[in-house]
Amino acid sequence: MDIAVSPLARPFPDMPPIDGVTLRVARAGYKDWGRCDLTYAELAEGTAVAGVFTKNVCCSSEVELGREQVRLGRARALVVNAGNSNAFTGYRGREAVEQIMAQVAQHLDCEPSDVFVSSTGVIGVPLPLDKARAGVAAALEAAPCSWKEAADTIGTTDTFAKGAMASAVVDGRTVNLCGFIKGSGMIAPDMATMLGYIFTDAAVEPQFLQDCLSAANLKTYSCITVDSDTSTSDTVLAFATGRAGNVPLASFESAGADAFASALEDVCRQLAHLVVRDGEGGSKFIEVRVTGAVSDDSARRIGLAIANSPLVKTAIAGEDANWGRVVMAVGKAGEPADRDKLSIGFGGVWAARDGLPLADYDEAPVAAHLKGQNISIEVDLGLDEGRATVWTCDLTHGYISINADYRS
Amino acid sequence: MDIAVSPLARPFPDMPPIDGVTLRVARAGYKDWGRCDLTYAELAEGTAVAGVFTKNVCCSSEVELGREQVRLGRARALVVNAGNSNAFTGYRGREAVEQIMAQVAQHLDCEPSDVFVSSTGVIGVPLPLDKARAGVAAALEAAPCSWKEAADTIGTTDTFAKGAMASAVVDGRTVNLCGFIKGSGMIAPDMATMLGYIFTDAAVEPQFLQDCLSAANLKTYSCITVDSDTSTSDTVLAFATGRAGNVPLASFESAGADAFASALEDVCRQLAHLVVRDGEGGSKFIEVRVTGAVSDDSARRIGLAIANSPLVKTAIAGEDANWGRVVMAVGKAGEPADRDKLSIGFGGVWAARDGLPLADYDEAPVAAHLKGQNISIEVDLGLDEGRATVWTCDLTHGYISINADYRS
Repeated sequence: MDIAVSPLARPFPDMPPIDGVTLRVARAGYKDWGRCDLTYAELAEGTAVAGVFTKNVCCSSEVELGREQVRLGRARALVVNAGNSNAFTGYRGREAVEQIMAQVAQHLDCEPSDVFVSSTGVIGVPLPLDKARAGVAAALEAAPCSWKEAADTIGTTDTFAKGAMASAVVDGRTVNLCGFIKGSGMIAPDMATMLGYIFTDAAVEPQFLQDCLSAANLKTYSCITVDSDTSTSDTVLAFATGRAGNVPLASFESAGADAFASALEDVCRQLAHLVVRDGEGGSKFIEVRVTGAVSDDSARRIGLAIANSPLVKTAIAGEDANWGRVVMAVGKAGEPADRDKLSIGFGGVWAARDGLPLADYDEAPVAAHLKGQNISIEVDLGLDEGRATVWTCDLTHGYISINADYRS
Repeated sequence: MDIAVSPLARPFPDMPPIDGVTLRVARAGYKDWGRCDLTYAELAEGTAVAGVFTKNVCCSSEVELGREQVRLGRARALVVNAGNSNAFTGYRGREAVEQIMAQVAQHLDCEPSDVFVSSTGVIGVPLPLDKARAGVAAALEAAPCSWKEAADTIGTTDTFAKGAMASAVVDGRTVNLCGFIKGSGMIAPDMATMLGYIFTDAAVEPQFLQDCLSAANLKTYSCITVDSDTSTSDTVLAFATGRAGNVPLASFESAGADAFASALEDVCRQLAHLVVRDGEGGSKFIEVRVTGAVSDDSARRIGLAIANSPLVKTAIAGEDANWGRVVMAVGKAGEPADRDKLSIGFGGVWAARDGLPLADYDEAPVAAHLKGQNISIEVDLGLDEGRATVWTCDLTHGYISINADYRS
């Protein structure tokens, strides 16, 4: 099936190299497709790593192992397989991951636990050992490639390559952060469903890198949803090579730690938005802003109930300011809400305030807003100071076409 | 928009009258449509009532008042408005309900609290007082009508009239239970999203009627989902006129209480299935059977996670035995599950057992099963004795067409 590029696509940015990171791609041939499907990133000695992973209890061996490896805090390489998620493949799936870790570790003369593996694609088919072995061998010999080539290679149902960058001044030096990500369906928080990788030349202690990534995750990947489905393989890893030569960031007391943390969150937010922009069948990018909730967490849950509602998402696809469906979604979230204090708006125009439709509600500017590609929904609970912003896309015929046909 | 009758529709059954129940319909003209949209049921003096209502916190005044009225246990009349849900309409919406209650109470010389009101349709537009008053007056004068006419009149986006019946022998007498229901979108449990009414000539004490209805609800309405969205107006009421003359059922110690309870559950299950069979855009009726969970409640949650997964529902629409998506849905349910004990099947054929794809899995019978209209998905957690069955329909282009266009 040929899927057109998402109308919400963004061009791949011009990203600088990161000292200590070398990217290569190869053809493992996991599927019968004429493209590279194995991505290899070699990382300088001393690279720190942090990660966040799916909460799906049927997770892949890659995720199980990755969780353990992240605790050790160090990485020398990353291998990403596309076309086969290797999830729900029992001990045979685990063997394939361990084979890849051992093969790369031998090449780099490092510990297998320094080699991170991710896989994405069909569930339930063990990753073939021979294809993985030959693919890794080819990648180790391949010429270095660009960020965009790597981003293209980790993709599956993605319709465009997704990358983002930011920089920060840390300890008097400018450090860069470059990332790429894949994902377009089976996207829902806890955390968002995708494979994402961020590389920086900053020197960061692993625990602080983890703190920053976990905090960023809560406000970015965990605030996006395409279809409420959570993959078995979701992974975001951050690698810090330390080649910028700054005094390693160890806590928010370190000089430049705030700047680094906010640059990391910036890259994460950009990458998360790109996943929504490639949401299967999406034709509109929707921002749901919730204020006045009893807590930020409650606001996020309410935002996600709205963003996951098929009736809200189809209304936006139909360019219909159907705020009644937003009321319904607020009410079903299971969070504190008072119908008679609730206000709903679109594109900055209130349609209902304090539980009543506005008598002088002018639908014309709202109708114009809904014809655009970037939609905002505002919800004020009127209870307290809790707030959150979540992002999703609309639900269209395209989603059905893609998912009633894509297959195993 | 003209919506074709659901391919999963069932003919309206030939249901006997219930002594003590008189049905009438009228045109209130809540929408500009050439059909009756107000249903009135007059109930004999002494009729007991029980009810279950939506858990949506943004519920309508009808639901708020209904909850209070049910506690009193007695009913003399029911009024159902179609075309306007009167939800999110603040004090003006409440006035409309109270006006209807007062108007009917005056006519019947009963308490306003004996008059139950439900409304269904667009959210956020107060029910017009003048149309409601004239509609009720017309209904009070109208000739009695059939079950099917009443079932047709409470419908909105429904594509066929839905009724069900059962009987039981209680205290040596045969009692009948007849019900009708509406609903096709915004359907999700807690409890299922719809308006349903069951009438019986059995004599039943209100508290026991409530116990039976609540128990039946847990296994029927709360086990169906169309789109995971929960309406602000969901209501199921059961009315027992007592005209059969049996010694009133007061507890499971009463003669025939078990027979009555299981007949009630039978009618509830039939009605719940009919709602799924009219699920917006549905082309297949899906039964998800979960066994081996840690508890029945856990099994129900896992079943609903599967039944609500857009990726599972589109796979069934595509007649694709994509059991990997079922694994994903089990894993995201947030309930205890062990990937390596999990088994998944379709139509009675296991595709995966104990966490591994079956080596000798023959997809041919499964493919044939998936081409049918009645699909079953079996999930065995392999943990304990918890079990549940839930029902849903597939997710097709029809859902998008209906919901991107239906409107306010």
